[in-house]
Amino acid sequence: MIQELIKNIKEKDAPIVVGLDPMLSYVPEHILKDAFDAYGENLEGAAEAIWQFNKGIIDATYDLIPAVKPQVAMYEQFGIEGMKAFKRTCDYAKSKGLVIIGDIKRGDIGSTSEAYAVGHVGQISVGNHKFSPFTEDFVTVNPYLGSDGVKPFIKVCKEENKGMFILVKTSNPSSGEFQDQLVDGTPLYEIVARKVAEWGEEHMGEDYSYIGAVVGATYPEMGAVLRKLMPKNYILVPGYGAQGGTGKDLAPFFNEDGLGAIVNSSRGIICAYKKSEIYGPQNFGDASRQAVLDMKEDLKNAFVK
Amino acid sequence: MIQELIKNIKEKDAPIVVGLDPMLSYVPEHILKDAFDAYGENLEGAAEAIWQFNKGIIDATYDLIPAVKPQVAMYEQFGIEGMKAFKRTCDYAKSKGLVIIGDIKRGDIGSTSEAYAVGHVGQISVGNHKFSPFTEDFVTVNPYLGSDGVKPFIKVCKEENKGMFILVKTSNPSSGEFQDQLVDGTPLYEIVARKVAEWGEEHMGEDYSYIGAVVGATYPEMGAVLRKLMPKNYILVPGYGAQGGTGKDLAPFFNEDGLGAIVNSSRGIICAYKKSEIYGPQNFGDASRQAVLDMKEDLKNAFVK
Repeated sequence: MIQELIKNIKEKDAPIVVGLDPMLSYVPEHILKDAFDAYGENLEGAAEAIWQFNKGIIDATYDLIPAVKPQVAMYEQFGIEGMKAFKRTCDYAKSKGLVIIGDIKRGDIGSTSEAYAVGHVGQISVGNHKFSPFTEDFVTVNPYLGSDGVKPFIKVCKEENKGMFILVKTSNPSSGEFQDQLVDGTPLYEIVARKVAEWGEEHMGEDYSYIGAVVGATYPEMGAVLRKLMPKNYILVPGYGAQGGTGKDLAPFFNEDGLGAIVNSSRGIICAYKKSEIYGPQNFGDASRQAVLDMKEDLKNAFVK
Repeated sequence: MIQELIKNIKEKDAPIVVGLDPMLSYVPEHILKDAFDAYGENLEGAAEAIWQFNKGIIDATYDLIPAVKPQVAMYEQFGIEGMKAFKRTCDYAKSKGLVIIGDIKRGDIGSTSEAYAVGHVGQISVGNHKFSPFTEDFVTVNPYLGSDGVKPFIKVCKEENKGMFILVKTSNPSSGEFQDQLVDGTPLYEIVARKVAEWGEEHMGEDYSYIGAVVGATYPEMGAVLRKLMPKNYILVPGYGAQGGTGKDLAPFFNEDGLGAIVNSSRGIICAYKKSEIYGPQNFGDASRQAVLDMKEDLKNAFVK
């Protein structure tokens, strides 16, 4: 699946992933109205609204982008109905040739971690049958529990040719509280990064591992160090746009081959219509498409020497 | 809700939480057969089986225990149908007067963390209505992302009189890889514990905070230190029984008042019938009840001076 991600990135000439993180407040009024009219002002109606919103974004952008990253929390907040919308979104994006990065940030130990892996990127056995409950290609994983938490994911990813991105240095202001703590002069995120490089060797594609890392766009200097510590691990970069990162800041996250990183934008793309004077809510998809094109242009600054 | 947990613990005289972490392989053959006959050998059948299994355990033990801790991964692995069984289990246990600790180990930032909190211990607004998608009383939270990840949970917990347990030192063998790293001589888990004590002050019950910590039974010496660092924070203790901890090991986790800790056992209780020569699979509930009684007896060793 890392091969497919890289192939998509090359073909679309865009190291971009669109974060499908729909809040109800992001959904245009006419979609909300239709959904509530059809299903009621309830969890089912809300789930229908975010699904229709996602579908509009996917339809308007899929030919430009290699991947989408649905944030499961935004679906889980609507309970069972929300999880149905999550699955439907993943399945639909996949039918459009997109790679699906499930932003689930799960992490537990042993058979529990394996259960998460099986549920999201693997297959569960029931009697003599196998099922894929959710259908992501990659998931994000929290490393706090150590190898006992990560290895079950690696096992399932190897069986299924799937991959994962492990949180190393997150984009948020307080990420330093624990991640930057110095251990004999070395910040914890570097210790995690070294483990990611080590874990990555267990599941290699051609040039890159199926096991990548999450490093926030908001910390470009740390990105430069981490890029070198994990030369064969793809970096998923959140924090571009709404969180403050710009194209120029992203140079350190890429390797000399122009690969090695994929940059996420969520609100900057899916809420583009709100900041646009050209596109209104009715044309939210067109606004998202233009935002992807603008982002693509801005990211070229990452490669200007 | 911390008051209700403490009240339940005192009334039942048992600082015990039963981990409802059902694998299909734990479910007795007759339950599996009935579920597959009714719904097919599929995700729906599997979800029915684990729900019936849980119901049997709850019915057999609810009068002895203060709380249950369903591990969401074991439900999520069965997709949408599994999540329905999760909700059904939480709702049923609550109807029996039990406190529900959702072992979800979520953690993200800002509005995303808030979405998890809203989904599991809060209420989501849809139009002019409010809904509780999942209905836990406490959740477990991963601290790797720092205050940005934890504070949105605190906000929702305050609004709802709910609580949380933050991972500090987990019970697994590799928990030390990152958690034990020394920062100027202080292990990271102590730094996290100090933050838990600080966060806990933001949402206090009478003697204890609504914000607790997870510390593994497998590390009693660290438990003693952590107990002192977080005097007002309840400690949720996994790792008893199947993972190796015993009653005697648990003394350091309790305060002088005999409170301050609640000990989880999952397989030791829900799979008790497999190790029993008295109870067969048909009487798995009775085997679980006896296992709870045995655990209650063993835990008395924690209080022997």
